[in-house]
Amino acid sequence: MKISARNQIKGRIVEVSKGATTAHVRIDIGGAVVTASITNEAVDELGLKEGGDAYAVIKASDVMVAVD
Amino acid sequence: MKISARNQIKGRIVEVSKGATTAHVRIDIGGAVVTASITNEAVDELGLKEGGDAYAVIKASDVMVAVD
Amino acid sequence: MKISARNQIKGRIVEVSKGATTAHVRIDIGGAVVTASITNEAVDELGLKEGGDAYAVIKASDVMVAVD
Amino acid sequence: MKISARNQIKGRIVEVSKGATTAHVRIDIGGAVVTASITNEAVDELGLKEGGDAYAVIKASDVMVAVD
Amino acid sequence: MKISARNQIKGRIVEVSKGATTAHVRIDIGGAVVTASITNEAVDELGLKEGGDAYAVIKASDVMVAVD
Amino acid sequence: MKISARNQIKGRIVEVSKGATTAHVRIDIGGAVVTASITNEAVDELGLKEGGDAYAVIKASDVMVAVD
Repeated sequence: MKISARNQIKGRIVEVSKGATTAHVRIDIGGAVVTASITNEAVDELGLKEGGDAYAVIKASDVMVAVD
Repeated sequence: MKISARNQIKGRIVEVSKGATTAHVRIDIGGAVVTASITNEAVDELGLKEGGDAYAVIKASDVMVAVD
Repeated sequence: MKISARNQIKGRIVEVSKGATTAHVRIDIGGAVVTASITNEAVDELGLKEGGDAYAVIKASDVMVAVD
Repeated sequence: MKISARNQIKGRIVEVSKGATTAHVRIDIGGAVVTASITNEAVDELGLKEGGDAYAVIKASDVMVAVD
Repeated sequence: MKISARNQIKGRIVEVSKGATTAHVRIDIGGAVVTASITNEAVDELGLKEGGDAYAVIKASDVMVAVD
Repeated sequence: MKISARNQIKGRIVEVSKGATTAHVRIDIGGAVVTASITNEAVDELGLKEGGDAYAVIKASDVMVAVD
């Protein structure tokens, strides 16, 4: 499946922590670590676990820009 | 200002292209390039231009995870 | 690529209309028509056109619920 | 109340599961089932329960498009 | 229609500016002015114009918090 | 840090309630109260607590408009 989201950044999962319904997944994309807040279901369905390869996928309209 | 968004990734702007109301800003975060879709107004107000330092800021709930 | 987004609804593209930087793509998912606002770039890259098969992909945290 | 969101798809609630602060509501829209992640509060306030009629409401800028 | 979005703030429209596909609508909510980026279609369909009453509607998961 | 988000509304925190991974923070912006759903981590990192000053920060593309 190819998706329209402009940002698909490859990395390695460094942490998966599940809550009651929502999980946090951290992906090291080389230097920076990206945090994703997704459903527990998605974690199970994709078999996400520490050490696995994964992409952080972000729609361009969800990215803001900041300057110092 | 410190913001709650979990993802604040430093980089360098490599392209700013304005549309009628919406602009696309590309930030090289070291390896990957992140595309942000923001208002033309924000581009002007922050003085965003090619070559400038900037952060890509993304709320954790806007990040998805994908696997091959 | 398998993605964490909970909603991946198959349908057929019934309209693609490009603006200056942002395009609107309408997908008939069988009864309802879903409108997506994505970048012109994504339209070109995925080769989206009227009559083509496509999925509407939506993160669960972006879905609201309403009642009459 | 009429809202600007382009996508307002009528269906029937097939599951409501509450977490600590966040609930998942599944709406059968005729063929596909849409999952919404909303606050527990909203579930209570709207009286959402299995078997009830409801709309899945999604802003066009939150819809992505994918192809096989 | 009652919607799950936690934030429904009443105000008065102070500006509507259309782009190629995307419009910006500014709503004075009493002190602060909120900017919404919505489709031109939605502007037409709801008959939004300067001076009209309107609500800014925002899902809780799309609100961030910042401190000085 | 200056951010591109069009909406940065100053107020006072009136409630912070943490869940398993996700917290709800309510900010009184003068008349209206805005609810933000953010990570517990962000609450801790920014030291958010009842009575403190804070901004509700919202990207324009996440604001919808409604009329009666």
